[in-house]
This record gives sequence, C-alpha cells and structure tokens, in this order.
Amino acid sequence: MELLNKHVTIRRFTDRQIEPALLNEIMYSGTRASTTGNMQTYSMIVTTDAEEKKRLAPLHFNQKVATNAPALITFVADFNRFTKWCRLSNAEPGYGNLLSFFTAAIDALLVAQNVCVAAESHGLGICYLGTTTYNAEELIGALNLPELTFPVTTIALGYPDEQPGLTDRLPLDGIVHYGAYNDYTDEQIRQLYAYKESLGEMKQFVRDNNKETLAQVFTDVRYKKADNEYFSDKMLATLRKQGFLP
Amino acid sequence: MELLNKHVTIRRFTDRQIEPALLNEIMYSGTRASTTGNMQTYSMIVTTDAEEKKRLAPLHFNQKVATNAPALITFVADFNRFTKWCRLSNAEPGYGNLLSFFTAAIDALLVAQNVCVAAESHGLGICYLGTTTYNAEELIGALNLPELTFPVTTIALGYPDEQPGLTDRLPLDGIVHYGAYNDYTDEQIRQLYAYKESLGEMKQFVRDNNKETLAQVFTDVRYKKADNEYFSDKMLATLRKQGFLP
Repeated sequence: MELLNKHVTIRRFTDRQIEPALLNEIMYSGTRASTTGNMQTYSMIVTTDAEEKKRLAPLHFNQKVATNAPALITFVADFNRFTKWCRLSNAEPGYGNLLSFFTAAIDALLVAQNVCVAAESHGLGICYLGTTTYNAEELIGALNLPELTFPVTTIALGYPDEQPGLTDRLPLDGIVHYGAYNDYTDEQIRQLYAYKESLGEMKQFVRDNNKETLAQVFTDVRYKKADNEYFSDKMLATLRKQGFLP
Repeated sequence: MELLNKHVTIRRFTDRQIEPALLNEIMYSGTRASTTGNMQTYSMIVTTDAEEKKRLAPLHFNQKVATNAPALITFVADFNRFTKWCRLSNAEPGYGNLLSFFTAAIDALLVAQNVCVAAESHGLGICYLGTTTYNAEELIGALNLPELTFPVTTIALGYPDEQPGLTDRLPLDGIVHYGAYNDYTDEQIRQLYAYKESLGEMKQFVRDNNKETLAQVFTDVRYKKADNEYFSDKMLATLRKQGFLP
C-alpha cells in the first residue's frame, strides 16, 4: 500500500480550509473501522472555529501545528452514549472500569488511524498530538466531556505546506518476533539503533541539546521520568474522575 | 477511500497460507504509522505454527477465528527495547508508568490498524481479538513478554472464506460533535439506536438470548459488569507486574 508507506507527519498547513463534505467523508471512513462488539464506544470532536482552536491551543502546549491547522479532531473513548442507551433499554450497564476504558480507547484509536489514512488519500496531511493524554483533564473541561468519556488522541489536519522526507524506522526484524518474544541482547540493541544514531540530523539534535548520547535527548529533554510520572498521576486521577477507575 | 469503507470482519479463512514475503510487506506498512517521538514503542509477535496457535487458542477462548486463521499477530506495547537502548546509552529511562504504557499502546494500535488496511489491500481478511486484554497475563506467559511490555490486541488474518455484508453503524451525526460534546437527550439516544434495534438479525439476537431488549444482550450476556470488573482487576494487576504501575 503505497499510501501507507509514504506517510509523513505534516506540521505546516496552507490556509485552505477543509470542505465540510470532505471532512464528513473522511470521518465516515473512520467509522468503518473495526469496533468491539460493534458497540462504537467513541466520539469525535471537530474543532475548526478560530476561537475554539485558541481555547485548545494551550492544552496542546501552543504547538504551532495545533494553532495553525484548519481542523483538529479529538478522539474520545466514549461509554457515555452506550450506557445511556442501556439505561433507556431496561439494561444495567457495567462500563465504569479500566477494561471498558481500554476497550473504548482501542475503538477510538482504530478510528483515528482510519481517519488519517482517509485524509491522506484525499491529499490532506495529519499530525497526531500526544498532548491529549497529558492534558486530558483540561480537555475534558474545554470540550465539555461527560462521565465515562476520556480523550485519547487528537489529530491536526489540513492541506500540507511542506514536503518532509520519510523518517527513519527500525528494521522490521527489530520489531517483529516469531512465535514468542526474543528479548534483545546488548549487541542487538546497539545494532538496531546504530543507523538512527548515525544520521546527521540526529547528531545535530544531540549537539543542540548539549547531550552526550541521542538517548539522553529522550530521557533528559523530550520524555523525562519526572514528567511521565507527573502526567501518569494526573491521568489516573482523571480516569477516576471520569468514572473509569474505582 | 473505498477500501476502508468496505471493511468487514472475516471469521472464516481458507487453508491458504500467507506467503512470508507478503506478511513482511504488510507489517512494513504497519511500521510506517505515526509513532510518538519516533520511539516506536511496540512489537509484533507473529504466530503461524500450528502448535503455537494451539497454545494461544484457550487464551482467546478457543474462538474458531483464532484457531483457524493461518496467522495471528499480537501487538504489544513495548518500552522494553527503548529502555534497554537508554541504559546502554548512559541515559536514565523513566517509562515504568501509566502514561508510558498508554503512549506505547497508542503506537501499537495505530500500527495494528495500518496492518489491517494493508492486509485488506492485498485481499486478506482480518478479525480483531478483544480477548487479548482479558488474558494479557496468560499471553505474557505464553509469548514470553518481558517487563515493560503488554499485549494490547491481536489480529487473526488469512484469505477470506466468507463474504459477509457491511455491519450497521450509527449515523455520523451520532458520533461527531462540533466544538464541544453535545450530550445526548433520551430522545436522541432512542433515535440513534432505533435502526439497529429494527434489524431482523438483532431482533433474532434478542430472542435467541431470551432477553427483552437488545441492550440487555450486551449487559447480561456479552459484556457483563461482573466480567468487566473481573478483567479490570486482572488488567491492573498485570500492568503492575509488568512495571507500568506502582
């Protein structure tokens, strides 16, 4: 599938807006993804209005890609709608728990990826915003999300104003295991990451951050232990508040 | 995207095996999906051997689709490989927490959906197995998964031996919200689910299960509160055991 193989993340968009009919078409392709028991336990929140985007911007750390994209779609794990249907149908729902949250999150993420593939097939570019899980609590407030919902990811989308090259990937045999997980020896790890470390862009990245190794840029700058732990506690508290944890 | 729009779940496969080169091509398309910070925190475990499939079958509740598929691919949230690289690079990793688990789960699920789309583009059929999260603990044993890994979903794939029709979906305006979440009134819920409830197949489903309403089939038979709570506790314990929760 050439379309999948040439995917690159787009962070700069032209001013061209996405026609509502096209946006609907793309989201419809999203809804055709597999869903657990056909329960469809997710929702999509579309943000195209300039004022509304401004309100979300700080929750996405004011990343340019979030402020400049013509549209944001926030994908929400949603057991609220299904639970309401159960209650109206003389049925006793039991979806206020971790398994149900994760089931709904899977639904939402498969839809998100379908939406991205559909968007790219129409010449649009996309960027996933990982900030959604960091600031789920604040997004819940800004998007008015009720109990038994939780935002799991957001995509920024629009017409590309850049043409970045493919990013590096680990070789397939560093990702795929046959029969069972073959844990990595130190030597295998060194070999797997050697290509990435050799890239000029990565070497520059290490220098720019005043680090000794590329891994240190990840552990000390980009995805730090203290931040991960802070946002984990916040996520746990928010899952509890939304009714997904006791 | 016609390919996405005509997706149906396939549960019966012919005996034809999937050529290893084709399987690699499909998984390669998976690896081109977006991944947080290009950390690629997932692994794929391929099961094609008859004996190995037999070992996994009970963990997927002996569903026919799991025992008869030529191949299973288990998608694993994996911070083990990245953490090992950090340790070898004089960097102090901090990925033993919920946020990191969820980040890795997102990576794994976007890859899974790309693999499904790629598989279907080559004429294969797929079925997601939700049993993976139910029996993560046992799969970790069977697949030899180390600390900082967790299986998030499995797909069964092979050449289709059936041609099911499209399944029903809620209308797009029941799934999509603009600007913020517009919570549903009782009347809206009734209207949204009316079509599904009116289907002959669904009415039969209610009768077969000796229930009064379709929702009761979900709450009393298919996705019961007691089961969800049991598997939630199990999932929490397993996340802890794998090092993703304190």
